[in-house]
Amino acid sequence: MKNVIVGQSGGPTAVINSSLVGVYETAKSLGVPQVYGMQYGIEGLLDWLVVDLSTQIRSEVEAELLKRTPSSFLGSCRYKLPEIGENDEIYETIFARLAELDIGYFIYIGGNDSMDTIEKMSAYARMTGSDLCCIGVPKTIDNDLAVTDHTPGFGSAAKYIGIVMKEIVRDSLVYNLKSVTVVEIMGRNAGWLTGAAALAKGADCSGADIICLPETPFDLDAFVESVRTLQAKRGNLVIAVSEGIRLADGRYVCELAGEAATHDVFGHKNLTGAGKFLAGVISDRVGCKTRAIELNTLQRCSAHVASRTDITEAYQAGGAAAMAAVRDSESGKMVVLRRLSTRPYLCVTGLADIGEIANQEKLVPREWITEDGFGVTDEFVRYVYPLIQAELTPVYIGGLPRHIALN
Amino acid sequence: MKNVIVGQSGGPTAVINSSLVGVYETAKSLGVPQVYGMQYGIEGLLDWLVVDLSTQIRSEVEAELLKRTPSSFLGSCRYKLPEIGENDEIYETIFARLAELDIGYFIYIGGNDSMDTIEKMSAYARMTGSDLCCIGVPKTIDNDLAVTDHTPGFGSAAKYIGIVMKEIVRDSLVYNLKSVTVVEIMGRNAGWLTGAAALAKGADCSGADIICLPETPFDLDAFVESVRTLQAKRGNLVIAVSEGIRLADGRYVCELAGEAATHDVFGHKNLTGAGKFLAGVISDRVGCKTRAIELNTLQRCSAHVASRTDITEAYQAGGAAAMAAVRDSESGKMVVLRRLSTRPYLCVTGLADIGEIANQEKLVPREWITEDGFGVTDEFVRYVYPLIQAELTPVYIGGLPRHIALN
Repeated sequence: MKNVIVGQSGGPTAVINSSLVGVYETAKSLGVPQVYGMQYGIEGLLDWLVVDLSTQIRSEVEAELLKRTPSSFLGSCRYKLPEIGENDEIYETIFARLAELDIGYFIYIGGNDSMDTIEKMSAYARMTGSDLCCIGVPKTIDNDLAVTDHTPGFGSAAKYIGIVMKEIVRDSLVYNLKSVTVVEIMGRNAGWLTGAAALAKGADCSGADIICLPETPFDLDAFVESVRTLQAKRGNLVIAVSEGIRLADGRYVCELAGEAATHDVFGHKNLTGAGKFLAGVISDRVGCKTRAIELNTLQRCSAHVASRTDITEAYQAGGAAAMAAVRDSESGKMVVLRRLSTRPYLCVTGLADIGEIANQEKLVPREWITEDGFGVTDEFVRYVYPLIQAELTPVYIGGLPRHIALN
Repeated sequence: MKNVIVGQSGGPTAVINSSLVGVYETAKSLGVPQVYGMQYGIEGLLDWLVVDLSTQIRSEVEAELLKRTPSSFLGSCRYKLPEIGENDEIYETIFARLAELDIGYFIYIGGNDSMDTIEKMSAYARMTGSDLCCIGVPKTIDNDLAVTDHTPGFGSAAKYIGIVMKEIVRDSLVYNLKSVTVVEIMGRNAGWLTGAAALAKGADCSGADIICLPETPFDLDAFVESVRTLQAKRGNLVIAVSEGIRLADGRYVCELAGEAATHDVFGHKNLTGAGKFLAGVISDRVGCKTRAIELNTLQRCSAHVASRTDITEAYQAGGAAAMAAVRDSESGKMVVLRRLSTRPYLCVTGLADIGEIANQEKLVPREWITEDGFGVTDEFVRYVYPLIQAELTPVYIGGLPRHIALN
């Protein structure tokens, strides 16, 4: 039996390591001799940065700690393979490396960009007659992967948004005055995470008063009018906006501030600033006190409030990938989650052709956004609700969650 | 027996309601007929916004939920009473209101500004021959109250900082490149909370590489040099800075960005922006990728990760205030926490004259800051460590912590 290699790619999540443990434990249970990890994804493989995972996950305790450790344990990359035929030297190098390690199964945990890697790797294997099996494991807080009902990583990020929105709403009510708090949430094109702000509303919380997703054009005048109307009823408002909201003419709201656009480490334009800009507009045009809160990287790494449903599904998705590759010799596919029922929540893993998923983007359907574009429907909330259920308590040592680092 | 009235004042914390429950339950156990709550502090009393707490805390379950609810349940204010003799009409109004409710005991939960209220109320009572007993309960995430070893609210905020710093450090390591993450932490003049970033360091975490408190002058050139030196050893650095760091000439670092200063709802100059400014400087002068993370209002309201030590001490401080006023007829004092021992951690409540505390500010002692000003000593960590110990799990319902709101 050949060996397995697994990598993590793209932005991290709170549960991406649970998928890694799922791959590792399942592969070992199937009798795979060695399970290797690529450090920094496929880019690391090119640099021979490979670890034997049995030297990292040495006990059940370490496996449990790893499940609770946020951010990619193996490191990550945003490396895009060239089109096949354009620069095949890279493929030859990769496949030579894999042959040297006697790899038969290539598993990649990532989002839509990373699934492009699975698509190209499996196509190259097919083309060259290699029996390498390539399987993708879905991962992204953005929940924007096609075919799968949802993505591991989203449930924990949504739970984080729900928790902090509740706490921010309480904080916003503390003074007897008129105020608006604008909370800016991640999600460049897909509003799944911003929509999760709707979870805060309940018996003990008025929730977010306005929620703006990037899927519908943002109308600044209508927005200000809506703030005025709502504030006539209640003094302190909390608003959730996606970092990626855009005007009807396509301009990002964050660009209206007139600050020069900055770029992230991969050259993507940074979209932060929409919340701050809107707080300024409300301050000027409505005249009340405002503040802008930019939720930070904790949206993708707050393992201390991971959803148990999410962390379990992440593990199962990793396990299903190992099964598909090692036991069933599947290739060019991604594990998907198939929801059988919402109440009771029943969900199983399946497989889908990678071509249906790679480089695609699943947005929030228009009918799950309210007509005025300032909220999400009950159906949206029913969809997200099961994904944030139950907790997996961190292993607290000395008052802080204990993690595990590559040694 | 006369009645008790209690209020919450100043910025909220994650455990300020635990003190409220401590006051309420202790007063009831002493046989006090009515325990009233002022909404929005003493400002609300002037507007007759008073609630009977027995209509709010109707069961043991509600008491437990209230302990776990962040942000001031009764609402808050930042109202400063006039000097006695300047505008005694206000005092006459307040004391008439209190007489109408047959109040004998006035308890105020707050920080150094709020203790000014206790000082003036007790002085006015003494001057006019009133037998009103006025007692303060310490509360602030800033930990800057004099005499008391520490303040309820600080431990939970410090625990939050420790947890998120660990998660941010992990997130910062994910890509194989050189980067600097600058995390901006609350604390205008006192660096207690920023120093708590040092808690992140441990067996599983490299921690914060540089920590800058407002107590020592900030030297920009030395800072850049330190970043360069550290980055030669490790690619990805994480830096914690206080929002209030200042140059030797007294200018705030956040003002160097050249943006017009904004003011908060109480006219205090907003100090945010130091982290963003420093990230820009590092980007320009060191040339690596940078990002700035401004920790937001969750520093003061993240009840979902409250320290059990803190929440217990907050309750005890509230209880001790009720005891001091109702049982011992003390007045013009604040409850303080007295640490008997650090290992094992032993701490008791006591009382101190309000004059030693009101309007004072306790800073981090210079000897607990490293000589170069870029870190805190082991002694600092030993001081904070016991305050973040143990957890009080939220009551999770539907995947989110359940709170309780004024009804």
